[in-house]
Amino acid sequence: MKLPSIPNEEYVRRISKAQELVRERGLDILLVNSNEAEFANVRYFSNYWPIFEIAGVVIPPRGEPTLLIGPESQTFATDRSRIARVRLMTEYREPADPAYPGVPVSSFRSVFAEAGVPEPRRIGIGGYLVTTAPVLDGLRAAFPGAELVRADDILVSLRSVKSDAEIACQKKAFSIAEDAIGEILRQMRPGMTELQVVGISQKEIYDRGAEYEGMPQYVFAGPSTTHAISRPTHRVLRKGDLVQLNISARIDGYSSGVGRPVCLGKMTEKMRRMVEFGRTAHRNTMEWMKAGVVASEVAKKYRRFFSENGYDDSFLYGPCHGLGMIEVEPPWMEETSDYPLKENMTFNVDTFLFARGEFGLRWENGVRVTRDGVEPFSGRFMDILELDV
Amino acid sequence: MKLPSIPNEEYVRRISKAQELVRERGLDILLVNSNEAEFANVRYFSNYWPIFEIAGVVIPPRGEPTLLIGPESQTFATDRSRIARVRLMTEYREPADPAYPGVPVSSFRSVFAEAGVPEPRRIGIGGYLVTTAPVLDGLRAAFPGAELVRADDILVSLRSVKSDAEIACQKKAFSIAEDAIGEILRQMRPGMTELQVVGISQKEIYDRGAEYEGMPQYVFAGPSTTHAISRPTHRVLRKGDLVQLNISARIDGYSSGVGRPVCLGKMTEKMRRMVEFGRTAHRNTMEWMKAGVVASEVAKKYRRFFSENGYDDSFLYGPCHGLGMIEVEPPWMEETSDYPLKENMTFNVDTFLFARGEFGLRWENGVRVTRDGVEPFSGRFMDILELDV
Repeated sequence: MKLPSIPNEEYVRRISKAQELVRERGLDILLVNSNEAEFANVRYFSNYWPIFEIAGVVIPPRGEPTLLIGPESQTFATDRSRIARVRLMTEYREPADPAYPGVPVSSFRSVFAEAGVPEPRRIGIGGYLVTTAPVLDGLRAAFPGAELVRADDILVSLRSVKSDAEIACQKKAFSIAEDAIGEILRQMRPGMTELQVVGISQKEIYDRGAEYEGMPQYVFAGPSTTHAISRPTHRVLRKGDLVQLNISARIDGYSSGVGRPVCLGKMTEKMRRMVEFGRTAHRNTMEWMKAGVVASEVAKKYRRFFSENGYDDSFLYGPCHGLGMIEVEPPWMEETSDYPLKENMTFNVDTFLFARGEFGLRWENGVRVTRDGVEPFSGRFMDILELDV
Repeated sequence: MKLPSIPNEEYVRRISKAQELVRERGLDILLVNSNEAEFANVRYFSNYWPIFEIAGVVIPPRGEPTLLIGPESQTFATDRSRIARVRLMTEYREPADPAYPGVPVSSFRSVFAEAGVPEPRRIGIGGYLVTTAPVLDGLRAAFPGAELVRADDILVSLRSVKSDAEIACQKKAFSIAEDAIGEILRQMRPGMTELQVVGISQKEIYDRGAEYEGMPQYVFAGPSTTHAISRPTHRVLRKGDLVQLNISARIDGYSSGVGRPVCLGKMTEKMRRMVEFGRTAHRNTMEWMKAGVVASEVAKKYRRFFSENGYDDSFLYGPCHGLGMIEVEPPWMEETSDYPLKENMTFNVDTFLFARGEFGLRWENGVRVTRDGVEPFSGRFMDILELDV
């Protein structure tokens, strides 16, 4: 199976670009952290993706970076990491908190010294929201005089504009998610549980080359369709249900999410009206986007479109979120988002609306921003989907 | 589909037992934290399992607990939580770091006051290893005079001895994992990738009632079988490969992991010898366990058994780890583990060994400690597994 992937030289380039930003911002060193669910920052620089344990990457202004892992993953990390220097630290151990009698480990002082920065005064922290208590307190104890500076903006600025290799991975991840939706449309029937439909999708994504789901698969029917985020359950699908599908796959770290509302039978008049309105809002959003447009303008037009059509009560958020390694990542697109869209930024156009206490639905497709508009990463199954059951 | 689950009154009991321990240890209040991957502590008390966001539970010495969530999950959490009082806090927002203009949120001060503890002096923290920087710094800023006390021992003491309902969930999770192994043995062939085999297993577990994988499925062939922990890849299976399978499912929060070494064809003499030695070490471990035995004794016997049989170089860790919501959880069983085994503690007997640079293998089965020995949760497919391919 021939699959797109991120070449080794791209990892090298990412490190040197990060080093430029570290120097520009007057940081002495950058430490980025990740966990199993929020793996992106560490994987972006190393391709390493922890399991059970957590991980970090140390980036000095010049010279070699270091991958930090817990005491159990040495062979795994050494085989997988694009960063040659790998160090074990108890601060990165798994949350089950093993004792590791006798395992030799490094310390923040030894790791930073080895990176050429024995006495940092300004330490940048990337992935601040997933930086754990032992790491934070460990850093403060090792360097009591140093200032810890939130440096997530460095990661956002690196990660939000995509390379050709990243875009190729994203396209494949979307194409696989759409294949899985096709398979669901062939197999889904009343009497199955939401979770059994998840199984159909899982089989399909792994069969077609996914390395993992891009996010937990959404198959929601009945009341939980009104949840913008939720988890599938053992609820049995019934004829007449409007099912919220959001199916995802991951290719070499890059995640997709394709959302479709599907009815098991004929939609009610109200359902159909909202499904059609959502699709129009979704398509309009894509029309409003192109390089140079300020993000908040798109968000304001989207909000106004709901109001003008009498759907104020159905509005929850929108219209887009950043898309990359994590299926939801910065930058956000809100009425307060004052940045201009740039070529090769990628977004999920995420059109969610709901009738309170009744049902909800989502149209979702990935796009790349171009000079003239957007290039969609997905677009199959955009009809009004009513299964003959 | 009739599946075991944790009844509501058990959640209520868990809270009151935790409150007893909070009072016993002289804590003014307990805050436990979880994330999406390490969900157990929060789910144990609330059944809530976050997606994208993180979560916490506040337990005062007396009175009502509070579930803390990020700003996006109100409907989802309210529908799912067994704790009635749910509060939104930006400290628990998703790592993609949205701005949430205009969403009203609570603070640590308002939440603790509402719980009847406006000025805590000793705050217990459960899930210290997954407590994030914003939560830790937020607590310190809200209560600058208070002492933060690691209280993971409270969680371990509550979670390590299982109830009948928990054991029923565990048994079902193991039975489903074994069904999935049966399906893999029927379908796995040279030419498939490791990840395609993961897909076979995913389809099967969801079809049979799993709510999720218990941990990322292990299907490792070739060099990566020497990794004790790893992730499946696009490596194509070849005739003669010894494949390390570790398959898992989750039932109402409880995870299984069943490990089997499977050869695509005939094992070499060396493989067969190590596979057989591993199985004997595995069975002996179960023989050595029963209520009252000190955990370190089992670990020492296991270590000695490797030495006596000339397998010192093949030893990495072992012989057991705690088992529950997370497939690996405390208590550990090491040569330093000085606690006695108790009835209804549950462990995964995890027998991993490897020939450096060649291959590795794992036998793994769940057990419940009884007065006379152990009750296995799994035990199918314990033959020498050589597929006719």
